[in-house]
Amino acid sequence: MNGAQALLRALLAGGVDVCFANPGTSEMHFVAALDDVPRMRGVLALFEGVATGAADGYARMAGRPAATLLHLGPGLGNGLANLHNARRAGTPLVNVVGDHATDHVKYDAPLQSDIAAVAGSVSGWLRHSTSARDVAADAAAAVAAARAGTIATLVLPADVSWDEIDGDEVEGVEHSDPPVVEVRQTRPADPSAVEAAAAALTSGEPCVLLVGGDATRAAGLAAANRIAAATGAKLLAETFPARLERGAGVAPVDRLGYLAAAAVHQLGAARHVVLVGARSPVTFFAYPGKPGDLVPDGAAVHEVVAKEDARDGVATAALEELAELLAPGTTATPAALARPALPSGPLTAETAAAVIGALLPEGAIVVDESVTSGLGLPGATAGAPQHDVLTLTGGAIGYGLPAATGAAVACPDRPVWCLQADGSAMYTISALWTHAREGLDITTVIYNNSAYAILRMELQQVGAASARERARALFDLGGPQLDFVAIAKGMGVPAVRADTAEGFAEALRRAAAEPGPHLVEAMVPPLVP
Amino acid sequence: MNGAQALLRALLAGGVDVCFANPGTSEMHFVAALDDVPRMRGVLALFEGVATGAADGYARMAGRPAATLLHLGPGLGNGLANLHNARRAGTPLVNVVGDHATDHVKYDAPLQSDIAAVAGSVSGWLRHSTSARDVAADAAAAVAAARAGTIATLVLPADVSWDEIDGDEVEGVEHSDPPVVEVRQTRPADPSAVEAAAAALTSGEPCVLLVGGDATRAAGLAAANRIAAATGAKLLAETFPARLERGAGVAPVDRLGYLAAAAVHQLGAARHVVLVGARSPVTFFAYPGKPGDLVPDGAAVHEVVAKEDARDGVATAALEELAELLAPGTTATPAALARPALPSGPLTAETAAAVIGALLPEGAIVVDESVTSGLGLPGATAGAPQHDVLTLTGGAIGYGLPAATGAAVACPDRPVWCLQADGSAMYTISALWTHAREGLDITTVIYNNSAYAILRMELQQVGAASARERARALFDLGGPQLDFVAIAKGMGVPAVRADTAEGFAEALRRAAAEPGPHLVEAMVPPLVP
Repeated sequence: MNGAQALLRALLAGGVDVCFANPGTSEMHFVAALDDVPRMRGVLALFEGVATGAADGYARMAGRPAATLLHLGPGLGNGLANLHNARRAGTPLVNVVGDHATDHVKYDAPLQSDIAAVAGSVSGWLRHSTSARDVAADAAAAVAAARAGTIATLVLPADVSWDEIDGDEVEGVEHSDPPVVEVRQTRPADPSAVEAAAAALTSGEPCVLLVGGDATRAAGLAAANRIAAATGAKLLAETFPARLERGAGVAPVDRLGYLAAAAVHQLGAARHVVLVGARSPVTFFAYPGKPGDLVPDGAAVHEVVAKEDARDGVATAALEELAELLAPGTTATPAALARPALPSGPLTAETAAAVIGALLPEGAIVVDESVTSGLGLPGATAGAPQHDVLTLTGGAIGYGLPAATGAAVACPDRPVWCLQADGSAMYTISALWTHAREGLDITTVIYNNSAYAILRMELQQVGAASARERARALFDLGGPQLDFVAIAKGMGVPAVRADTAEGFAEALRRAAAEPGPHLVEAMVPPLVP
Repeated sequence: MNGAQALLRALLAGGVDVCFANPGTSEMHFVAALDDVPRMRGVLALFEGVATGAADGYARMAGRPAATLLHLGPGLGNGLANLHNARRAGTPLVNVVGDHATDHVKYDAPLQSDIAAVAGSVSGWLRHSTSARDVAADAAAAVAAARAGTIATLVLPADVSWDEIDGDEVEGVEHSDPPVVEVRQTRPADPSAVEAAAAALTSGEPCVLLVGGDATRAAGLAAANRIAAATGAKLLAETFPARLERGAGVAPVDRLGYLAAAAVHQLGAARHVVLVGARSPVTFFAYPGKPGDLVPDGAAVHEVVAKEDARDGVATAALEELAELLAPGTTATPAALARPALPSGPLTAETAAAVIGALLPEGAIVVDESVTSGLGLPGATAGAPQHDVLTLTGGAIGYGLPAATGAAVACPDRPVWCLQADGSAMYTISALWTHAREGLDITTVIYNNSAYAILRMELQQVGAASARERARALFDLGGPQLDFVAIAKGMGVPAVRADTAEGFAEALRRAAAEPGPHLVEAMVPPLVP
């Protein structure tokens, strides 16, 4: 047995049985070991950002880490944007980065680079494996670290993979306890913080209850709903939840707005902002002359559970404790099943949202990178059958198609709807090939508005008044217009274009009726012309 | 005038007038300033790896830096692989990375990350700009640093762009001398090193003369050719030159092989390896039980000019000095015009190479990321009209389509032929859209062999004997087969497929006859089945 085989067995022993891979020469023995350890599923991505985004989407739905397999520093670089999103989501992820063999490093061969510097920027745990004998323990430590809600990066020199170890050591590996790793332990809510929040919520002053992390699942939202109903507090969820359960049967929640003006309106005249698993609200970007801190002037902020601790039910437990204090014996009021009527006429962001609300299947996983075209989606789908929504936690675009890949691998029996803006689709477009390769049940909607429409909006927000044609050309995706039907066909995904609400509905119905991936190109006018 | 406008003017004053950009909100004022500083050309890329690869290709051909514009840490991450290649090429490049406004950093908003850690892994110069008043000087320093053959990264907070500065300061900026920056100065060859090399070359023992850096241009190769002819030394160029001039009228040179076995054969029984602008030869990857150092046992290595110094004619001057010493009064023997005959029959890597040799136009810029399918190209094009070849200096694939973009922007009057493998094309495929957008005269050949064929080869090289179906599936790009004609159409580039040598020739002729970008999908069997 060689190091790679020992590594794969250790990953399996830790419950990691999927590896999203884009390997190169230094990873050959890892790849070869897939034939010796057949329970490990290798999923090929044509670009590392697809692999890392898929591992993120997988873990958000499976509740356990997947592994990646990346090729040295450049491969890690290509995967970095979606690792950033995973870091912001608190996603457990075992990030395996192949490296030159230990003896080869001194030659500074062309692919040599500072892997640790780059990996350190996204990893909560990082180890450079040094021998085949220890690599199984390294892998076990990585899994344990990842399971604490972080990216655990294991740098894997080629010789660590190919060196042989003897059978006894293998035996030991498979039966040893997982090693202790020093990762941040989640802390339950402090009783005094719960008391302070309870006092604020019953003060009679306007309160906002802002929830995030594990509290955006059904149980947390139910408790929050009870608290809000009993106290009159306004309930909001963080802007970009890692995983939001919603729809009929789940207590409803509005998300804090991305646009500062919307968020300011939502937070209104609150005198108290109670945080359970969410960060104190700030603007996504800075805008000249406008505050970045969205907490209303003079309002008190009460953190019950820090965002970093809001996992494994910690935020939910705090909300349930508060609910028992403030609303004993009550039950939550879930959203009722209430779909919009199927619209007709021209396809717009609004009618597209209504079509999706009308047709979204029970148990769907919605991966949302719709950006401006999706502004109407939360309203239109609030009463759809229960579904999960995965969002762009770190703001690094190019997340949707890869995350959908991982979600579909994690949940093969659930339909995945990937709602994807055109501009951000192009960063990781090759994910479509993996959708086809793996026969994943993903319906991708590309909102083609031929623009980085959000940047037109942001241009107004930042007050860059001098911008004229040459600036606007940098937000223009027309000339040539992207043809996503052709692109999808080129990667083996059946696709159709829709420019009416009826055509869009028909295309979605057909996609839902057939197994495997589909793409529907929704031709919509940009929100900001 | 705001900081962004001052920055753009300072870049222009330093001779930087092209910016390959993929901006976001924090870069809005930079973008807006393009309307105020119209001499700066903004070229939109749909992915940051296209922007950084284009800036690399541009500088290799223009001989001066372009700027990039990237969006915070994730944008930098997406651009990192091609920055790695640029670093390995010694490419001058001004890498502008937008950041949150200074006051916003404390909020740790979703897109916040450690930009400096990531940028530091590829940059020879790195500065975080702190005020609009100083940003012009920062930009001038960045340009000066870049011109010394490095990536100069300027981190640009949004407020530095948007803050206003007064006119006097602007006046000063435009007329001030460029600031002194501490970058590595190139060192001319030491006389004693020249003497030692001369002694080795005239020792009567077998010698290899290995050249790189600026010595792979016509003048350096002419001098090297004279030395080799006079001394019997075997002349080789580094495996992956940043820019290799070759073809009829240029002294010919073989490149050191990528495959270790080939390189070992080329280096043969050399007792002396004389390095002029090249590194001492090592294998690209490590292989179990095989040496990484390719210098024959017991051979002496004589470094005349270090790779890092081989720019601005330094390596060429050393070769000319050696030629005057060892071969005074001689002239080089350039390659004669000798094209292969146009082949007929099935299209293979070999017949495709012959077609390219037969048709390559005068003055072409060949961007070569053909990987295994291109093994026959050097032979087939050795007697083609004079052309430049840009190669994958850092081994980070996804370089070809972006570099072709930049080369075409740098040299609008020269045809660019981008010879691109299928697997590596998919990392930065959206470059095709920029080809179309800018109407660039690029003929892209995609060798579609439905495989990461090089990995099949490497699997044998590393001796991963256990690899069977599950491993091989990770190198298989069939199922579904990529359709590059459809993908190109989706991005606005006219495309045809060829599966015979005649059809390939006809497609290339038509592409050459029409302005603007074209793509030819060459269906070839993989070299390793």
